[in-house]
Amino acid sequence: SVSVLFFSRISWISDIIVVVSPENIETMKAIIEKYGHKKVVVVEGGITRHRSIFNGLKVFAEKELSSHLLQKPEVVIIHDAVRPFVDEDILSRVVMAAKEHGAAGAIRPLVSTVIASTADGCLDHSLERARYRASEMPQAFLFDIIYEAYQQCTDYDLDYGTECLHLALKYCKTNAKLVEGTADLWKVTYKRDLYAVESIIKDNLSQEVCVITNVKEDVAPVGFLLPEALKSQIKVEAVSISQSKSGSHLLNIFSGQCYNFVCVNDKKCAIQETQKLVDMLEKSDIPLLYPVVLISVHLNISENNSFSIGMEELTSIKKFAREIKKKNILVYGLLIQYK
Amino acid sequence: SVSVLFFSRISWISDIIVVVSPENIETMKAIIEKYGHKKVVVVEGGITRHRSIFNGLKVFAEKELSSHLLQKPEVVIIHDAVRPFVDEDILSRVVMAAKEHGAAGAIRPLVSTVIASTADGCLDHSLERARYRASEMPQAFLFDIIYEAYQQCTDYDLDYGTECLHLALKYCKTNAKLVEGTADLWKVTYKRDLYAVESIIKDNLSQEVCVITNVKEDVAPVGFLLPEALKSQIKVEAVSISQSKSGSHLLNIFSGQCYNFVCVNDKKCAIQETQKLVDMLEKSDIPLLYPVVLISVHLNISENNSFSIGMEELTSIKKFAREIKKKNILVYGLLIQYK
Repeated sequence: SVSVLFFSRISWISDIIVVVSPENIETMKAIIEKYGHKKVVVVEGGITRHRSIFNGLKVFAEKELSSHLLQKPEVVIIHDAVRPFVDEDILSRVVMAAKEHGAAGAIRPLVSTVIASTADGCLDHSLERARYRASEMPQAFLFDIIYEAYQQCTDYDLDYGTECLHLALKYCKTNAKLVEGTADLWKVTYKRDLYAVESIIKDNLSQEVCVITNVKEDVAPVGFLLPEALKSQIKVEAVSISQSKSGSHLLNIFSGQCYNFVCVNDKKCAIQETQKLVDMLEKSDIPLLYPVVLISVHLNISENNSFSIGMEELTSIKKFAREIKKKNILVYGLLIQYK
Repeated sequence: SVSVLFFSRISWISDIIVVVSPENIETMKAIIEKYGHKKVVVVEGGITRHRSIFNGLKVFAEKELSSHLLQKPEVVIIHDAVRPFVDEDILSRVVMAAKEHGAAGAIRPLVSTVIASTADGCLDHSLERARYRASEMPQAFLFDIIYEAYQQCTDYDLDYGTECLHLALKYCKTNAKLVEGTADLWKVTYKRDLYAVESIIKDNLSQEVCVITNVKEDVAPVGFLLPEALKSQIKVEAVSISQSKSGSHLLNIFSGQCYNFVCVNDKKCAIQETQKLVDMLEKSDIPLLYPVVLISVHLNISENNSFSIGMEELTSIKKFAREIKKKNILVYGLLIQYK
């Protein structure tokens, strides 16, 4: 789902075919509905990898299969869901290479030596590591080449093969161009890989924080000192909305990759300000992919505000936070009595 | 260091040679000193993998190199530090196979297809994934075979080769037995692998908790309800030390793999009890490998104990915890006024 959303954001990709096992089709359709994915068609997979990919390609070639009447593309990218950290750079590099060579695929250096085994489980020979590469995804093909290869290939290929580049070579005499990919393209296979994925996402999400304040510096300098203090550890975007220029500037930030917001406010109506910000976040597509964290700090600078009013305010922010959590926005309230 | 400690605990391993780059020799010696490792000799590595391994093997063969006069072993295991999750089972399986076949090594299925590249970076051919394996560690050899292979092999082998099984095959006509290893034997190579390592260790450490209580059930049932509540989530060992049988039973637990302790106490001298437990933990070698967590819960069941006495107690436990943290034992204090 993360990959689908990522692909759907790339302007030069016209259509996305998601191939899913029969039992997961309804779930996938629900996800696409929920996130408002555009350009996406869901197709039923086969019992092997190659049969699934072939099913996906048929949508463009066999008009009776497609209720969407999709136009046959010049180049098709093949990717798998177990590599969530694909980026636009590698996609455009395999597409360019496929236009020139007919086929292209991402590769990585081998981590371990590869050996061939005899029938009785002994070493037959070992491969010289420098001459070989691990074949990864994404791969790209001129549509006519890969579709021709799938039409020509045998049932044995479809049932036991795993490598699309091999089909293009065997059936269309196309030697794919090999494109060096980033380490993040590895195949998420074992439980430990899920741990790694989680940590990489957390790392990525905590690269940047946006501090928004409407408190004037001479009233309370905290809104200005906080960004300074954070700068040594994280990329910080500081926005002062005291001159009511909030709208367009904030929208710029929301179109970026910031997932963390601290909102410092000294007005009585702090909660309404927080709600306004949450509304804007909701309308952007930031919370679709990953959770957004918003820390709403209310600086109470008046002398006569009682403890119980503060508690009341925290209670209402708590209630608001519980509601908005469903939209993938995590709101935390902090009330500071400021003297 | 974790591997060294692990190997040094296995009774049937007589000697451990740690090959280290020249600039890290002093650090490694300090670690061995600190953890009281037995059976360990540190040797200076070469500029390539094979030259380092050869240096390690020479300790057994060239008497003038060894100030320790180590006896030449029948079988030698070769392992690398980037695979911290090796277990005794795979070690004994490769050793047994090496005794029978002369050489043996752990293997894993290939995750990605392996392809051969042409000189200009295009696909030459792809390998049928099922016929090949990733060669991992540990590997084991009859000492005479692997030492002979290293003596025979060329400078080119020593500078560019990576596979010990290959040397045994090429120079001693020994086809190594391939032994299927666990997924945890993967080679820690990328930053994401460190995340995975961290999570696996945390997972392993949080498999079991030991709840120790000296509170009689009729006085306060919490010491008995806590293990029950925890049982649905984690393996729990509950120990009641009310009958003063503490010593031997606790020692049994300390010889196991438990890294988490909750100690529930209703005596005035709760901190002394905690100190006694910490002493026992310190004498065991549990905190050598990983941090031990001890939560000291003081149930205050008397009516007339004041708040300030409680605070005093927490302060002294905090001071104690700061001291004992250096020994890799993390102590947390919890004071409960029980009515």
